[in-house]
Amino acid sequence: MSQSTITVGIYGAAGYTGQELIRLLASHPHTELVFATSTQDAGQPVPGTSLTYQPHDTPAPGSVDAVFLALPHTASAPVAAAAHAAGTKVIDLSADLRMDTPEAYEAWYGVAHPNPELLPAPYGLPEINRAAIAGAAVVANPGCYPTATLLGLYPLLAAHALAVDAPVIVDAKSGVSGAGRTPKPSTHFVEVFGNLSPYNVGRAHRHTGEIEQEIGKLNGGTGPLIFTPHLLPVDRGLLATIYVTLAAPWAAASLQALYEETYAAEPLVNVLPAGQHATLKHAVNNNSGTVSVTPVTDQQVVIVSVIDNLLKGASSQALQNFNLMFGLEETTGLL
Amino acid sequence: MSQSTITVGIYGAAGYTGQELIRLLASHPHTELVFATSTQDAGQPVPGTSLTYQPHDTPAPGSVDAVFLALPHTASAPVAAAAHAAGTKVIDLSADLRMDTPEAYEAWYGVAHPNPELLPAPYGLPEINRAAIAGAAVVANPGCYPTATLLGLYPLLAAHALAVDAPVIVDAKSGVSGAGRTPKPSTHFVEVFGNLSPYNVGRAHRHTGEIEQEIGKLNGGTGPLIFTPHLLPVDRGLLATIYVTLAAPWAAASLQALYEETYAAEPLVNVLPAGQHATLKHAVNNNSGTVSVTPVTDQQVVIVSVIDNLLKGASSQALQNFNLMFGLEETTGLL
Amino acid sequence: MSQSTITVGIYGAAGYTGQELIRLLASHPHTELVFATSTQDAGQPVPGTSLTYQPHDTPAPGSVDAVFLALPHTASAPVAAAAHAAGTKVIDLSADLRMDTPEAYEAWYGVAHPNPELLPAPYGLPEINRAAIAGAAVVANPGCYPTATLLGLYPLLAAHALAVDAPVIVDAKSGVSGAGRTPKPSTHFVEVFGNLSPYNVGRAHRHTGEIEQEIGKLNGGTGPLIFTPHLLPVDRGLLATIYVTLAAPWAAASLQALYEETYAAEPLVNVLPAGQHATLKHAVNNNSGTVSVTPVTDQQVVIVSVIDNLLKGASSQALQNFNLMFGLEETTGLL
Amino acid sequence: MSQSTITVGIYGAAGYTGQELIRLLASHPHTELVFATSTQDAGQPVPGTSLTYQPHDTPAPGSVDAVFLALPHTASAPVAAAAHAAGTKVIDLSADLRMDTPEAYEAWYGVAHPNPELLPAPYGLPEINRAAIAGAAVVANPGCYPTATLLGLYPLLAAHALAVDAPVIVDAKSGVSGAGRTPKPSTHFVEVFGNLSPYNVGRAHRHTGEIEQEIGKLNGGTGPLIFTPHLLPVDRGLLATIYVTLAAPWAAASLQALYEETYAAEPLVNVLPAGQHATLKHAVNNNSGTVSVTPVTDQQVVIVSVIDNLLKGASSQALQNFNLMFGLEETTGLL
Repeated sequence: MSQSTITVGIYGAAGYTGQELIRLLASHPHTELVFATSTQDAGQPVPGTSLTYQPHDTPAPGSVDAVFLALPHTASAPVAAAAHAAGTKVIDLSADLRMDTPEAYEAWYGVAHPNPELLPAPYGLPEINRAAIAGAAVVANPGCYPTATLLGLYPLLAAHALAVDAPVIVDAKSGVSGAGRTPKPSTHFVEVFGNLSPYNVGRAHRHTGEIEQEIGKLNGGTGPLIFTPHLLPVDRGLLATIYVTLAAPWAAASLQALYEETYAAEPLVNVLPAGQHATLKHAVNNNSGTVSVTPVTDQQVVIVSVIDNLLKGASSQALQNFNLMFGLEETTGLL
Repeated sequence: MSQSTITVGIYGAAGYTGQELIRLLASHPHTELVFATSTQDAGQPVPGTSLTYQPHDTPAPGSVDAVFLALPHTASAPVAAAAHAAGTKVIDLSADLRMDTPEAYEAWYGVAHPNPELLPAPYGLPEINRAAIAGAAVVANPGCYPTATLLGLYPLLAAHALAVDAPVIVDAKSGVSGAGRTPKPSTHFVEVFGNLSPYNVGRAHRHTGEIEQEIGKLNGGTGPLIFTPHLLPVDRGLLATIYVTLAAPWAAASLQALYEETYAAEPLVNVLPAGQHATLKHAVNNNSGTVSVTPVTDQQVVIVSVIDNLLKGASSQALQNFNLMFGLEETTGLL
Repeated sequence: MSQSTITVGIYGAAGYTGQELIRLLASHPHTELVFATSTQDAGQPVPGTSLTYQPHDTPAPGSVDAVFLALPHTASAPVAAAAHAAGTKVIDLSADLRMDTPEAYEAWYGVAHPNPELLPAPYGLPEINRAAIAGAAVVANPGCYPTATLLGLYPLLAAHALAVDAPVIVDAKSGVSGAGRTPKPSTHFVEVFGNLSPYNVGRAHRHTGEIEQEIGKLNGGTGPLIFTPHLLPVDRGLLATIYVTLAAPWAAASLQALYEETYAAEPLVNVLPAGQHATLKHAVNNNSGTVSVTPVTDQQVVIVSVIDNLLKGASSQALQNFNLMFGLEETTGLL
Repeated sequence: MSQSTITVGIYGAAGYTGQELIRLLASHPHTELVFATSTQDAGQPVPGTSLTYQPHDTPAPGSVDAVFLALPHTASAPVAAAAHAAGTKVIDLSADLRMDTPEAYEAWYGVAHPNPELLPAPYGLPEINRAAIAGAAVVANPGCYPTATLLGLYPLLAAHALAVDAPVIVDAKSGVSGAGRTPKPSTHFVEVFGNLSPYNVGRAHRHTGEIEQEIGKLNGGTGPLIFTPHLLPVDRGLLATIYVTLAAPWAAASLQALYEETYAAEPLVNVLPAGQHATLKHAVNNNSGTVSVTPVTDQQVVIVSVIDNLLKGASSQALQNFNLMFGLEETTGLL
């Protein structure tokens, strides 16, 4: 792949993830942002650029080499299909391409899939699925909770180490930017300040299906995913505390070694030394995730996995996928 | 006045000030809350009571002994007029009755006054205007910024101590609940967290007129009020740092004595000892305001005045006025 | 018991729990605070009283009817012993009297118990152990994490509903006041702001033993407690998200009914309706705890339990115990 | 000046400003960090480098081309003198070299100057004093409050526009990192959270003298500086709201033009369009300051000036000075 300039467009660019993407693209050496859409901010200047926002239906999806889609689910897939048909590469940050089948999509999102012909798309978590992403035409960028959870679990999943039928428990906490930019009572400063709120407790959050789908591909036979997200009184960052049961006893040192070896060559995942625990600050404003693992008994393990929900949980991961899709060095513009 | 139960209603009860009023009335020994209105929450239960919210136009203003109006400006005055005509006492927490003339109202609010016959109403800052409030039928509850500012200035105003033509500079900082409960981009958690934002700098905020009107009644001839409010990243509390020039030199001890003596008998205003400075925490969740005064030179003085914007800046002050209007002990339900 | 005034003293009164206790006692109708100790603040005025702090060794423990001990562990037991010997009732907020045996104490605290003759003391969680507390001479006030955890688990424990050998997983989040008033790097504003930090992950926190001891008394045979506390960027409040496996399938409605019935007569524990989740704000500045229960599968349950760590997690619970010990109405000064 | 590598050392590197300096130097293309000192962290690894902290007295000040001093006042000047004697360039972030005379230093710092022979040193605010900094051997890096204040005032000072004898009023608000890394009661999370605290009100803060000195050089004859700093409940950022009286009436457009023209060529100061106000978020994590100006009357002006206290208020400004001292492009490593 030559290093000539790749033209890109962003649909849904005025939200928090779109803004991060614009910022990241500005220092990417091989891209040129050609358009950015926002129905609400149409005509306004796009920060840090000489562009103005266009309505979603104005730019032709096929007018650039690649499009990033930061649109609501069901709105995203039709744009993905149009871009793909025109030969434009697609990185979809919505949920539309994350489930492997239209049936699974409908089960979790309560609506028929708008473009089932696009499924399954490669699941864009490079540390787990790099080969399928490299050179792909269309990639589904994972959700923020799935990214943190799967990075935390991956070494154990790859080793088939989880006990059959034991539940996988994910207690996750996210900053408010994960709820989007549209003002709502639940994101009013006065409601969030000094508070901590669990929501969609158990198996009610839509990310449950996405996480379970990816766990199942790697380590079939685990028990149900039990997932409790909480809204944290911070602007950004996501921390998942994960509780799993191992199929057989593991020595503490072997467990730590498994994590260190799995991620030794990964530029965008850090593993903390034994005895240290990942905190939100390890990840905030950082393109990398950080993981720590703590054996509690020889079969009970606690993993803490942190990411910036807007970066490794959305926009920097989208750019990592983009780099892989275009044959660029994976960390271009990210380190 | 007998201590039999006084029936009350609240219009616009679902906002932050309405909620505080409901909470305060629940422990007031001589009142019974008969209705609470909210167009948006109509039919929902009123927290801490056995009532449900009614639409604004359902309860008859004259069906209770007193009404508290926490309605938007221009919506409040007509309800005040109807209640007053029916012999019901009115505590108006909106801006509608705060200006003395319809002309001043129109100048600051950009709209003709809906009920000019109600003006002027007694200005409900008891520490300054107690006599006019006692027994009154209708009272204008002051704004939060004017309350903090005027409590901070009052000892000097009453002593006619401010220099002619010197500007009065008020640098004020308020928690986000002062911006109301309706979700807006400016009150989104992500926008406020870690931020501090000046707004309506100089003389653009509508409270400027109200403050200047009251200063003028007490110490005519001062220079312009220069007023910069800032949005603080906290849920509640309001701190005003006030800079004034004295007409003549004052000894530090005399200045401190002036403040202590002015407020010595006031149950709801504290004056800090010389050398201490009022902080937001002195006032948060507190029905009292706190003031500190610091001489900088013999004619330059810095005053810090703090209140809880929802209490002394709104609801507890409304109840203080209510007590005075009905001949009850002024601090009933407030200490 | 007559309602004459009961004299009390507080040891270690200048910390956050001591301050809350002073505030609560000020509105308790049958107590008189006679002394408050603080080595560091000795000679300073005690806020809201006419007392000054005394050094710990100045007041005689037997000079009052009851003492509250908010001292560090190992420092508290000797004062408890001296007070008890003098016929003074003791509410110990330290960890010294919480473990039933000196061996368990030494196992978790790494030091021999200073006064093993005081063990076991009644465990002061009234909702679980009211009979043993009523009239007792010495009571061990529970830790904050154990209070939230045990209130969340109690209905299931009392019903012997937990599965044998299944781990009990407690993911807890606490405000910073739980770490005490002494400045430390970990409580520096800059380190905590915008952060979330797990600590003592797994079974490293000393409260683990206390929680497990009390679980074992009620529902023996459960698997290990796995407990991860996190430091939240708020000043106060504690939320525990608890994951348990039931021994047999339960219908959702039966589970909800179990919780509602268990706490129906409890004045200081609220159970939320099915479908709602407890949030930190339900508990902050509130003497009551709040619990919600969510069935995930028919044998997997998520419970959310919230308290104010300084109130139901420390000082208001101490006062609740005090009331029971002196035969007063349990909620005196608390509602 | 050739672009070969310049070796540098940092004294007092473990504090917040030292950490920012280490981070900035890591991406500076022409420097090599050779040592970093910290008495408290001696022997610990220096984050992001392969160094370990050394005690302050271990490295020879003359062993590198330049030293940055982030030491306490009175400790800094002797190291500056030793480095200077050895031909090493010095950027002093302490207060030791900011006052022009030993007498002024002693008046504000209450102690004799340790090395009066170093005074006066060029005052390192490049936008005001670039010529004196370029090529200098020793530079005094300004305080955070003076930087924000002087950037806000500079266009008016350079135009000699301020009224004779009128006070200059600076109401400033700073994040907690400005108070340093050492844990203190005043920086405990619980004390700061939800609070706002004025301190050193009037003319008590040591930065008063530094600001007044620099104002006096540019626009002699103004009245006293009245300066009230407040501690904001955020980790970083500094906002100064400045109130001045002009010597003669100015048209609003001329005032705006003065600010825009003054800073038109400055890469590290932004001026907002008329009608917009600088907020803390304009500056946080940003090497640039931002200024907005609002005419209130034709002679009364409000200026808002924001910086990141650790960057333009300390470390990025130090690097800007370093670049000038070594003849490098001023913004190297900063844009």
